[in-house]
Amino acid sequence: MKNEDASGTDAGQLQAWRFVKEATVLREALLDAQFELADRSNRAVLILLNGADGAGKGQVLNRLHEWLDPRTLATLAYDITDRRDQRRPPAWPFWRDLPQRGRIGVMIGSWYHTILLHRATGGADEEIFHARIEEANRIESMLDAERVTLLKFWLQLSDSKNVGTKIRTGAPPGSRYNPLVREWVEIDTKKERKRLVRAARELILHTADSSTPWHIVEAEDPLARDLEVGRRLLDTLQAAARWQPQGRSKAPARPRRATSGKPVLPTLDLSQTLDKDSYETELADAQARIFTATQSKAFRNRALIVAFEGNDAAGKGGTIRRLRSALNPVHMRVHPIGAPSDEERARPFLWRFWHQVPLRGNTAIYDRSWYGRVLVERVEGFAAPAEWTRAYGEINDFEAQLTRAGYIVHKFWLAIDEEEQLRRFEERKETPHKRFKITDEDWRNRAKWPLYAAAVEDMVALTSTEAEPWTLVESNSKRFSRVKVLRSLADRLEDEL
Amino acid sequence: MKNEDASGTDAGQLQAWRFVKEATVLREALLDAQFELADRSNRAVLILLNGADGAGKGQVLNRLHEWLDPRTLATLAYDITDRRDQRRPPAWPFWRDLPQRGRIGVMIGSWYHTILLHRATGGADEEIFHARIEEANRIESMLDAERVTLLKFWLQLSDSKNVGTKIRTGAPPGSRYNPLVREWVEIDTKKERKRLVRAARELILHTADSSTPWHIVEAEDPLARDLEVGRRLLDTLQAAARWQPQGRSKAPARPRRATSGKPVLPTLDLSQTLDKDSYETELADAQARIFTATQSKAFRNRALIVAFEGNDAAGKGGTIRRLRSALNPVHMRVHPIGAPSDEERARPFLWRFWHQVPLRGNTAIYDRSWYGRVLVERVEGFAAPAEWTRAYGEINDFEAQLTRAGYIVHKFWLAIDEEEQLRRFEERKETPHKRFKITDEDWRNRAKWPLYAAAVEDMVALTSTEAEPWTLVESNSKRFSRVKVLRSLADRLEDEL
Repeated sequence: MKNEDASGTDAGQLQAWRFVKEATVLREALLDAQFELADRSNRAVLILLNGADGAGKGQVLNRLHEWLDPRTLATLAYDITDRRDQRRPPAWPFWRDLPQRGRIGVMIGSWYHTILLHRATGGADEEIFHARIEEANRIESMLDAERVTLLKFWLQLSDSKNVGTKIRTGAPPGSRYNPLVREWVEIDTKKERKRLVRAARELILHTADSSTPWHIVEAEDPLARDLEVGRRLLDTLQAAARWQPQGRSKAPARPRRATSGKPVLPTLDLSQTLDKDSYETELADAQARIFTATQSKAFRNRALIVAFEGNDAAGKGGTIRRLRSALNPVHMRVHPIGAPSDEERARPFLWRFWHQVPLRGNTAIYDRSWYGRVLVERVEGFAAPAEWTRAYGEINDFEAQLTRAGYIVHKFWLAIDEEEQLRRFEERKETPHKRFKITDEDWRNRAKWPLYAAAVEDMVALTSTEAEPWTLVESNSKRFSRVKVLRSLADRLEDEL
Repeated sequence: MKNEDASGTDAGQLQAWRFVKEATVLREALLDAQFELADRSNRAVLILLNGADGAGKGQVLNRLHEWLDPRTLATLAYDITDRRDQRRPPAWPFWRDLPQRGRIGVMIGSWYHTILLHRATGGADEEIFHARIEEANRIESMLDAERVTLLKFWLQLSDSKNVGTKIRTGAPPGSRYNPLVREWVEIDTKKERKRLVRAARELILHTADSSTPWHIVEAEDPLARDLEVGRRLLDTLQAAARWQPQGRSKAPARPRRATSGKPVLPTLDLSQTLDKDSYETELADAQARIFTATQSKAFRNRALIVAFEGNDAAGKGGTIRRLRSALNPVHMRVHPIGAPSDEERARPFLWRFWHQVPLRGNTAIYDRSWYGRVLVERVEGFAAPAEWTRAYGEINDFEAQLTRAGYIVHKFWLAIDEEEQLRRFEERKETPHKRFKITDEDWRNRAKWPLYAAAVEDMVALTSTEAEPWTLVESNSKRFSRVKVLRSLADRLEDEL
């Protein structure tokens, strides 16, 4: 009775009582939405929890774990000063931990943390800072399109206590244990602090009209703060759970930026060949150069990613074998890319390739690659036009991130003509140990030769960047093709190191 | 015509000709067996390729890639001097890469390499060396029982060129590129070389009568060597592909080592409780101690793994939340353990837990754990008696490996009695935000109370080792239970660091 009489309690008690009342209702709704999301598994939800140190990121995190079912909720927290993540590109840990559809991740120390910290400590000038924000916006669009919903919170204290306030104590203040999540320990000087505040404002401004704006949450009052976060999350979870894939839109059957200029495949001189002696000498020479380059000290801080695409029976397997044997098996992996697994299907298409990004000093070889999105998935209709037309840009962003991290990305298209393919198909049918290489599907693909040719032209035109060009390889002669591939890799490595 | 006339060719040509003839037949049979294995996916095959440097490990590796279909074949090569793997227990990379059923892995630099190298360079005395071999034998039995077939090759040169021969050149000898896989670069002195040869002999001897003996392959003649490896592999692939699970054997319904002594659960005083003030003070105190310990410098080279098991509704979730909030989220992950995914089901049951082993300096918290094997899987019949009865020893080996690597393994059983469980089930039914915690399955489990109690008694008796004891927690009072858990962890951490 007494508790219900507001006049008999002070303001704090009243507030706490109201909080419990609101929180009880909110919590139930959150759980319902969480279960609906898990049940339908159509989108993932990724919550980014950023803001001032001392604004209560740790407390909000604990509150979310109190309110939600922990079985489909994961905390993903990062320390960018941690050495070991730097053996891979900066985005790698975020991709590794990306929740699958139906699940929720709460991220502390996301990519925005890196962007802001670099800006505040002088690691990024105005131009780089804005380029990073632009890139982040593109990646968010991609995640959104690939069914990851982002929910971005910026916890804010009043100006005097704002972002970058120096908090040095890790000990629990008061009698109750009170964890502190410190994001900005590296911010040391007043100048850096100012720069951080300004950069944070700019960042928030720059995404204000995007589909995933920042939610600025006043953090002075912890209970109001938690309710605010909870309500936003409820909206997001409900929207994500009820999301429906749109009917296959009438998207263009051609990529947005049409291929300009003439097709390049017909210009290749497929008749080029190589005699056996030259082949053996030149192959061994290129292998030795590749071995030496990848064992060099300079390579330890780099990495090599080689993607092989090509017509069926163009000789990818045999070429990869020659390349493989030129590399130290300790620092190399070959990834044959087939249909995605269930785990992979529950995440954006680039996820599995991010997962496989090698450590520095290592080489990853792809027998078919992320380009499947704009080749087989386009031609066979596994990807909707809206999906594959945006994939060119997504792939360029992916490779640009690798390149910026010092990775060497090299892409080969192994080209044969229709007559040579027919000859090889027939040969495979006849040779017992090659029979496994020829299936009905190969014959079906062959019937779609012009469609694949068009897809290849678009791919080469739209994803040949200066840093990551396509190397087109005339492959009617296996000897010529193998030597061209290995030599071009050797040249590239020597050039880069 | 000329080629078929042996008298017209020299011995080398004749040998090469015979090789091609044999290899063609072998290759076809290997591919057939490989496809049958992939098709049936009932076992994985793991080939260990060890032996003298210069005996041709790299060449054999290349040969296998030439003969087999690369799509279900992976090379797994390790460099034990590599710093980054040392941030986890030594066996971690092998577990991480363990091929799933239906697939083949070729491993270079396996655990035997580590064992031999430590022995040769003085890192392991006679006793430790033999203890490691014994442990390796137990792990092999486990892998075999869990449907991983091992095939162990030791490539041997004549005595003068044997194991540990110093080969310093990485450059390709002769005109053809010839890769060298060097396992023993660290072997420097004559003494170490001698010790290595002796250790290798002992190792091979010690596993001679096991189910997976070493195959010693004479490597002087590369062609004969490759054929020998290929033939052994063919036998192994065929056996693996045709393997049938045995009918549920009449294995004991009780673990092999019967529990001795009286049951421990009835001895717990579940009436213990704690008043609210003491609870808040003591909880905060334990949380602060855990925070301090896990943030200490000494912890950076250690790691903490906490497993929570307990009766349904015993309060695991709430306890984990209190523990979670005492840890830096950057260095902590909570793993709720449910039914295994398809990926996990295709590998030994310990695989997913090995996968999740935290980096040094980090904490992993398990909401249910690998003990599911001897609890729910035993009681519900998901594991055959032969499987769960051997699991006690397998789990002890798993935890011993973690402990040896400096990991702190702490296991809690949260115990409530039947009346308290009923009360909590009823409460859950009534409380909107707790409804999700109670399902029909919980009621079904409750009906099997005596079976679970027996399983817990066996588990505690058979897996309480000195280094990794079970802590039984009287949990009828949530306050008492939480404080006991956190305090006992704080004590353990302060004790260990």
